[in-house]
Amino acid sequence: MKTWNIALIGLGSVGRGVAEVLGADARFRIVAAADSKSGAFDPAGLDIEEILAKKKKTGRCGDPAWPASRIAAESEYDILVEVTPTNADTGEPALSIIKTALTRGKHVVTSNKGPVSLASAELLELAEKNNAAFLFEGTVAGAVPILRGIKYGLAGNKIKALYGVLNGTCNYILTRMEEEGLTYVQALAEARDLGYAEADPTYDINGTDAAIKLVILANTMLGMNVTLADVKRTGISDLTVDALLMAEETGHSIRLIASLYPEKNLLEVSPRLISKTNPLVVTGTLNAVTVETEYAGAITFIGRGAGSVETASAILADLLFITDKYDR
Amino acid sequence: MKTWNIALIGLGSVGRGVAEVLGADARFRIVAAADSKSGAFDPAGLDIEEILAKKKKTGRCGDPAWPASRIAAESEYDILVEVTPTNADTGEPALSIIKTALTRGKHVVTSNKGPVSLASAELLELAEKNNAAFLFEGTVAGAVPILRGIKYGLAGNKIKALYGVLNGTCNYILTRMEEEGLTYVQALAEARDLGYAEADPTYDINGTDAAIKLVILANTMLGMNVTLADVKRTGISDLTVDALLMAEETGHSIRLIASLYPEKNLLEVSPRLISKTNPLVVTGTLNAVTVETEYAGAITFIGRGAGSVETASAILADLLFITDKYDR
Repeated sequence: MKTWNIALIGLGSVGRGVAEVLGADARFRIVAAADSKSGAFDPAGLDIEEILAKKKKTGRCGDPAWPASRIAAESEYDILVEVTPTNADTGEPALSIIKTALTRGKHVVTSNKGPVSLASAELLELAEKNNAAFLFEGTVAGAVPILRGIKYGLAGNKIKALYGVLNGTCNYILTRMEEEGLTYVQALAEARDLGYAEADPTYDINGTDAAIKLVILANTMLGMNVTLADVKRTGISDLTVDALLMAEETGHSIRLIASLYPEKNLLEVSPRLISKTNPLVVTGTLNAVTVETEYAGAITFIGRGAGSVETASAILADLLFITDKYDR
Repeated sequence: MKTWNIALIGLGSVGRGVAEVLGADARFRIVAAADSKSGAFDPAGLDIEEILAKKKKTGRCGDPAWPASRIAAESEYDILVEVTPTNADTGEPALSIIKTALTRGKHVVTSNKGPVSLASAELLELAEKNNAAFLFEGTVAGAVPILRGIKYGLAGNKIKALYGVLNGTCNYILTRMEEEGLTYVQALAEARDLGYAEADPTYDINGTDAAIKLVILANTMLGMNVTLADVKRTGISDLTVDALLMAEETGHSIRLIASLYPEKNLLEVSPRLISKTNPLVVTGTLNAVTVETEYAGAITFIGRGAGSVETASAILADLLFITDKYDR
């Protein structure tokens, strides 16, 4: 059995999840790692525990002379795993790092929505040209295998529509408003306390995060060519408890639904009234996506849309797809 | 682009669905077809409309001197698509036909639960030995890509439990009892009228059909080695409207749940009380499966578990998997 050498770019929450999951798997060896300020590498395999301890103590995981860009360009590895935070405007620095790796013919797996939403066509072309894989299951709906489900499970089906709950933060807030009668402000504060919302939750709340995922689905699974500006967005901050209670009275819930109708070229994120019997009415931070297809009818995927180990699970599935395909 | 030659064994409801779906796809050409009494072949491609018309008129699709077994053994094709009805006791005649094709190094795709539940290990080994694919996404939950979802979408995850609604007939009956207060006998009669239950629905009602699907999941996705006799079964025929109404009063529904706990070697099909907020409480003939995994948490797949074109959709996904993998 071949051992695959991994360069891990990003040592935040997801990066630590990846380290945990890969540490339990003899098929993979992390030979390089980088945070935003430094990097480390060892062809025999890094001691990730030690590196994380060093980062905690000094703020840096390794040598400032070896930043992520240099790790990607000069160190030896088979697969680059890129899990730094999303920059929705430029995709940087991840975009350049991914290009560097693909240009070298290295496989790349990422959970970073920035580069994929901004440049999926260019990156997939670069990957193909260099006989490398570029996979990003973790960018949409975390652990839920929505990209692979569409690509392989529903292969040959024309997709007529796709819609669902793609932002766990909003879903948590709406669930709490509905179930406990909290105001929007109270529910948001609770989500922050529990780590379900970031310090600046603007992109979650105003629908941008869900819209970015919709762009990724549209461009990589449905053959469209759209940008974030093409997605009509309405967030949840104006929703009142009264609106949720009125919905409840008629057997409905309000959820922030991202929807995509390829034939109409329509992409939208907005709060929608949906029947409580609809499988999209998930609670808490869950994600749920329904894909309406030509032959298979409507298929719904539900699961955890975020989380350190959950996102690492999607990355692991991508890694195993690569090892299966290229180890022949 | 290569055109793949298909031998279609079985011209019932699913066979006609496959003919419809493949007829719209230039990548495939049906060069041979067989029903239970006869067969036809034409290397240039059969006129399926004509063959189905002949079958309707005469009861036979072709020449009795070319039964399915001879089509499988002697005619030329790339992929055998086997969609005859399930024989849960012997798997025949499908089992022998599939072996014949695999032994010749032909790829096989089937929606027939008999051969897969009885002999998956032997058939997968035979396929590997002859460098052929043996795929059967359509045997479990129809159009829902549960096998591929587990194998590729959740790759690397240890599966801790798997449970769900795997029989659409029972789910339809329970939904109608719950929603309309029909008795079991009334709901069953309605299901028969609508074509959701067979003339003899014993295998659906007593949990055997769901149990067979559980055996397939256990043996092919979870590395177990079980038979139908290992599945504890309780059907739905003793359920009363009162029981369903009592469940309703506490916010629950009763569903026939097939469940699988690999570490305990426990396989069971029985009616269970589940909270209405659980995504497994699907209505009508829908199927739903939750997979509890090590890293990804619980992932739920929902969709149409039966139907002619829906099953054909699963077969198409299998066919495209083969054309992608072997056309290099």
